[in-house]
Amino acid sequence: MIGFIGLGIMGSRMAENLLNKGYELVIYNRTKEKASSLVEKGATWANSPTNVARQSDVVFSMLSNPVAVEEMALGENGLLRGMSEGKLWVDCSTVDPSFTRKMAKEAALGGIRFMDAPVAGSKLPAEKGELVFLVGGEKCDVDEVRPMLEAMGKEVLYQGEQGKGTSIKLVINLMLAQTMAAFAEAVALGEALGFEQEAVVNTLLNGATTAPFLKGKKDKVLSGDFSADFPLEHMQKDMQLVSQAAYENGLSLPIANVTKEMYAMAKKHGLGQADFSAIAQFTSAKPTEK
Amino acid sequence: MIGFIGLGIMGSRMAENLLNKGYELVIYNRTKEKASSLVEKGATWANSPTNVARQSDVVFSMLSNPVAVEEMALGENGLLRGMSEGKLWVDCSTVDPSFTRKMAKEAALGGIRFMDAPVAGSKLPAEKGELVFLVGGEKCDVDEVRPMLEAMGKEVLYQGEQGKGTSIKLVINLMLAQTMAAFAEAVALGEALGFEQEAVVNTLLNGATTAPFLKGKKDKVLSGDFSADFPLEHMQKDMQLVSQAAYENGLSLPIANVTKEMYAMAKKHGLGQADFSAIAQFTSAKPTEK
Amino acid sequence: MIGFIGLGIMGSRMAENLLNKGYELVIYNRTKEKASSLVEKGATWANSPTNVARQSDVVFSMLSNPVAVEEMALGENGLLRGMSEGKLWVDCSTVDPSFTRKMAKEAALGGIRFMDAPVAGSKLPAEKGELVFLVGGEKCDVDEVRPMLEAMGKEVLYQGEQGKGTSIKLVINLMLAQTMAAFAEAVALGEALGFEQEAVVNTLLNGATTAPFLKGKKDKVLSGDFSADFPLEHMQKDMQLVSQAAYENGLSLPIANVTKEMYAMAKKHGLGQADFSAIAQFTSAKPTEK
Amino acid sequence: MIGFIGLGIMGSRMAENLLNKGYELVIYNRTKEKASSLVEKGATWANSPTNVARQSDVVFSMLSNPVAVEEMALGENGLLRGMSEGKLWVDCSTVDPSFTRKMAKEAALGGIRFMDAPVAGSKLPAEKGELVFLVGGEKCDVDEVRPMLEAMGKEVLYQGEQGKGTSIKLVINLMLAQTMAAFAEAVALGEALGFEQEAVVNTLLNGATTAPFLKGKKDKVLSGDFSADFPLEHMQKDMQLVSQAAYENGLSLPIANVTKEMYAMAKKHGLGQADFSAIAQFTSAKPTEK
Repeated sequence: MIGFIGLGIMGSRMAENLLNKGYELVIYNRTKEKASSLVEKGATWANSPTNVARQSDVVFSMLSNPVAVEEMALGENGLLRGMSEGKLWVDCSTVDPSFTRKMAKEAALGGIRFMDAPVAGSKLPAEKGELVFLVGGEKCDVDEVRPMLEAMGKEVLYQGEQGKGTSIKLVINLMLAQTMAAFAEAVALGEALGFEQEAVVNTLLNGATTAPFLKGKKDKVLSGDFSADFPLEHMQKDMQLVSQAAYENGLSLPIANVTKEMYAMAKKHGLGQADFSAIAQFTSAKPTEK
Repeated sequence: MIGFIGLGIMGSRMAENLLNKGYELVIYNRTKEKASSLVEKGATWANSPTNVARQSDVVFSMLSNPVAVEEMALGENGLLRGMSEGKLWVDCSTVDPSFTRKMAKEAALGGIRFMDAPVAGSKLPAEKGELVFLVGGEKCDVDEVRPMLEAMGKEVLYQGEQGKGTSIKLVINLMLAQTMAAFAEAVALGEALGFEQEAVVNTLLNGATTAPFLKGKKDKVLSGDFSADFPLEHMQKDMQLVSQAAYENGLSLPIANVTKEMYAMAKKHGLGQADFSAIAQFTSAKPTEK
Repeated sequence: MIGFIGLGIMGSRMAENLLNKGYELVIYNRTKEKASSLVEKGATWANSPTNVARQSDVVFSMLSNPVAVEEMALGENGLLRGMSEGKLWVDCSTVDPSFTRKMAKEAALGGIRFMDAPVAGSKLPAEKGELVFLVGGEKCDVDEVRPMLEAMGKEVLYQGEQGKGTSIKLVINLMLAQTMAAFAEAVALGEALGFEQEAVVNTLLNGATTAPFLKGKKDKVLSGDFSADFPLEHMQKDMQLVSQAAYENGLSLPIANVTKEMYAMAKKHGLGQADFSAIAQFTSAKPTEK
Repeated sequence: MIGFIGLGIMGSRMAENLLNKGYELVIYNRTKEKASSLVEKGATWANSPTNVARQSDVVFSMLSNPVAVEEMALGENGLLRGMSEGKLWVDCSTVDPSFTRKMAKEAALGGIRFMDAPVAGSKLPAEKGELVFLVGGEKCDVDEVRPMLEAMGKEVLYQGEQGKGTSIKLVINLMLAQTMAAFAEAVALGEALGFEQEAVVNTLLNGATTAPFLKGKKDKVLSGDFSADFPLEHMQKDMQLVSQAAYENGLSLPIANVTKEMYAMAKKHGLGQADFSAIAQFTSAKPTEK
C-alpha cells in the first residue's frame, strides 16, 4: 500500500496517476473534499497522517511549504508517529535544504528512511505524468520507488544525498522566477517605448535571449488571463526559501532578493493566486486598473 | 562610396564584410591604428568624420555610447558638417531612443536622412556577417541600404519610425543582461548548496528554464576565461540607457536597476573589459581571489 | 537689476524674498500666471529668458530639471542669447554635475560667469528666507552675490569649483530619499507586526536611529495628507540624476537604485505630485485603497 | 539566584552589571573561557543551560540568533529541561517574532513564564548599563524583573504581549541598517564626485538628513578602523529576520532586502566581524585594497 498526503493542484494529479497505474493508495488531505474524486476511483481515505502511515510501506507527501510539512510530519497525529522502522517517506514538497535535512534527521530517529523528491513541472505535466523528479537520498531507496516515480513522471534525476533534490529544485525555481520577472520588465519597457505588447513578446520569443518555458506563458501574458499553473504565491514562497538558503550558506543574491519582493508586492496587490507569470501584469507600463 | 565610422570589436568586422562584398569604403576611427588592416584591404582612410561625410553617400557609424556619437556627429570636424542634403546616416550604435531622436532632428536640420540600425549579435556574428539589424526610420531608406545591411547581417527587422530600432535593442539587451545575471545567481546558489559548478550548469542548460544564448556562455563560465565577445562595461552602459529610457517613460524597473548595479560593481572590481558573462565570476559563491 | 527665471513652489518664494529686501527684479516663467503676484509687488515681467538677460546684471534660475534648464538657457529666446560678457548666471536648479559643467562651458563661450547654487530646504524655508545655498564657482563671484543669497537663505556654504554645489546637493538628496524610504519600510514593518502606526512612528522618532527631518514628516505620515513641500516626482528625478552621476564616476549604488525605482513606482501609482514622504503610503502594509 | 546564558560582547557586559548591583549569578556560555572574569567577580559557573535553570528563579539569555537560542533552550541539557513551573525566562536575544512566540509556547508547555526583552544599544551602552529594553510579555512579569533590567539599562519600554519586544527590535534595527547603508552610499557618492571623505561626512552630519547615531560612527568611517560595537554579521542576520517577518506578514520590502544583500556581500568580502558601519568601506568609491 502507498500513502499519499497533500492533494492540491499537484498532489491530486500525481496520486491519480499512481492509481491509474494500478497502485493501491491510502490518502489524506487537510480539507477532505479534495479527496473525494480519488476515493471514487478506489483510493482509501485515512483521517490523519498517522493513519496513512500505519497502512503504508511508502508515503509520498506534496505540501505547500515547510510549515505545512512540519505540522503534517511532527504534529499531533503526524506522519512519523505512525511509521514503523524501515518504512520510507518521500517528500515531494518544495522546501529548503536545511528543512529537508531536519526532516531526514527526525525520520532517522525512528529508523525511518527519507528521500526528498521535489518536481520540475507544474499542473499540466503533473496531469500527464510528465514531471521530472529531482531526487536526494540513498540510491537503493531511489531504485525501490523508481517505478512509482515513473508512474507520475517522465524522468528521475538523482542528485546525491538527502537535501540535494531540494537544493537543485531551489536553483531551478530561482532561474524560473528571475527569468519570468526579467521578461515582464523587458515587455513593459517595450510597451513604454511605444511597441504593441504582442510585437515585443514575439520579438523576444523569436530570439535567443528567452528561455523555452516563456513560450508557454505567451498566451497568459497577451490575454491577461493568468489562471494558475503555478501560483504566484508559491513562487514567492520558493524565493523566500532561496533567500534563506543563500543566507545559511554565506551567499549574497541581490537580484534574487529584489525579485522576491516584486512577487511579494504583486501578491500584496491581489495576484497571489494567479499564475506566477502575472508578475507581467504587475510590472506592466500601464498601472493595474482600479 | 560608403562611409564607416567606428572600428572597434563590432565596427571593424562589419566594415570588413562590406569590403568583402565589393563596396568601396572610406573609414575613420578615433585611434587610427585600428584602421590599418582595412586600409590594406582597400579602404580609404579619412582623417575626420567631416571628411568621411564629404566622400560618402551613406555613412554607417558604430560607436560605444551616446557621448561618443554626439561628439562624432556634432563636434568639431563632426559628421554632420560634412554631409550634404539628401545623404543618409545610419547609426548602428546602441544608444537610447531620446538620443536617437535628437540625432535624427539634428540631421534633419541639414536635410540629412537618418536611420537607427543597432544590431543583435556580438563579435562572432559580426565576423560571419550574421548580425540581425533592428531598424527604425523611413521604409524607403531601409530599402535603399538593405543590400549593405545584408552584407553585414542575416536579417533586417524593420521596427517602425526613427528611434524604434534603438528601442527594441534596449528591450533585447535588458532581457540578455537580466537572464545572464539570473544564471549567475542560480549557478552560485547551486555551488553554495554543494553541487559542482559543472553539474549545476548542465542541469540548468538541459532544462526549459534557460535561454539558448546561455549555451554559448557555458565554456566561459566553466573555464573562467571571460575573453570578451560583448564587454561587461558595454552591457552596464546599456543598462544605464535602459534606466534612463524607463525613467523618461514613467516606468518602474526595480530588478533591472539592481541588475545594472551588479554589473557596475563587477566593473568596479576589475571586470569591465571581460565578457559580460563574467558577472558569473563576480556573483560566485567563492569570493574573487585576491 | 536682478533677473529671476522659474517661479514654481521654490522660485516664487525666493524671488519674493529678494523683492522684500529691496532688490529690483525682472522675472520670467513659462506659464505667465505664476508671475502675477510678484508683478503686483513690483517685479517687471519679461516675455522670454533672453529679455530677462538683457535687463539684468545677475540672473537666478530655479527650474525643475536639466531638460528645462537647457531649453531655458540654450533654446530659442534663451538666456545665453541675451547675456553680455561679464554678466553672472546663478543656477539654483537641482541638476547633475556633468550638466552643470556643460552649462558653465556654454556660458563661458560668451564670456559669461556661472555659479551653481542649489538649495537645501523646501517650501517653508524658501518662504521664510531660511534656505541653505550649496555653492560652486569662483569665490569672488560668490562674494558678489552673497547679499542676494542671504536675502533668500540663512547660510551660504561654498563647496569649490563649478559643479561642486550641484554635487553636494545630490549627495544630500540621496541621503534624504533613502532615509525617508527606510522610514517608510520600518513603519510598514511595525504595522505588519501588529503595532499602531502612531506607536511605531513615535518609537522611531524618539530614538537615535532617525534623522531630524523625519519629525517634520510625522504629521503627513499619520494623517495621510501628503500635500507637497517637496514633490515625490522631483525626488524621483533627483535619484535618476544620482544614478547617472554614479554611473559617470564608476560607482555602484544598488540601494540607491532600487530606492529610485520605489519612488518611480509610487509615482506610477499616482503619488508623483504628493510630498515625497508619500512613499510611506505606497510602502504601507495596507495596499492603497482602490 | 539569577541565571545568565550567553556571554558575548553584550551578555558579558550585562551580566557584569547585574553582579555589580549585587545580584547573585549563575552563568553559562558555550565557550567557557568567556566566563572566567565573571567567575572571578563572584559568579557561579554551571556546565549546561539545564544546570543554570535548576539553580535560578529567573534566567536571562543573550544569544546571537534563533538557531542558537533553540539549541540552548530545547537541545540536550537545554534550559527548559531544568526550569520548574512558575519560573521566568527572559530572552534578550534578537530573533524574529514567530520564533519568540514558538519559544513562549514551548515554555508554557512546562508552566514556565516567558518574556522577550531585546535591547537597543550596543557595546558601550551595555558596558555603562545604559541599554534600552524593549519588552514583550505579561505586565506583572515585567514589573517583577524591572529592577534587574534597570541594573543593565536606563529604560524599560513595555511593548505589549509576547513577541512585541522582538517585533519592535526588528523595526529599529531595520531603520538602523538602512540608514547606515544609505550614509555609506551618500559618502561614496560624495567621494566619487570629488569631495574629501571628511568634508562629505561633516556636511552630512551637520544637516537634518542624518540620524544622531551616525555621529558615533564618524571616527570609524574616517579612520577605517571598524572595530566592532555591533558586528556586521549580526546586522546581516537581523536583516534576514526582518525579511522573514515581512514575508510571514504579507509585506513587500524591496529596499530592506537589497540592503540585506549588501551586508551579506560585505561579509562575503571579509567584513563580517567588523562593525556594521564597515558597510561604508565596502560601498566606498575606491575598491577595497587587494
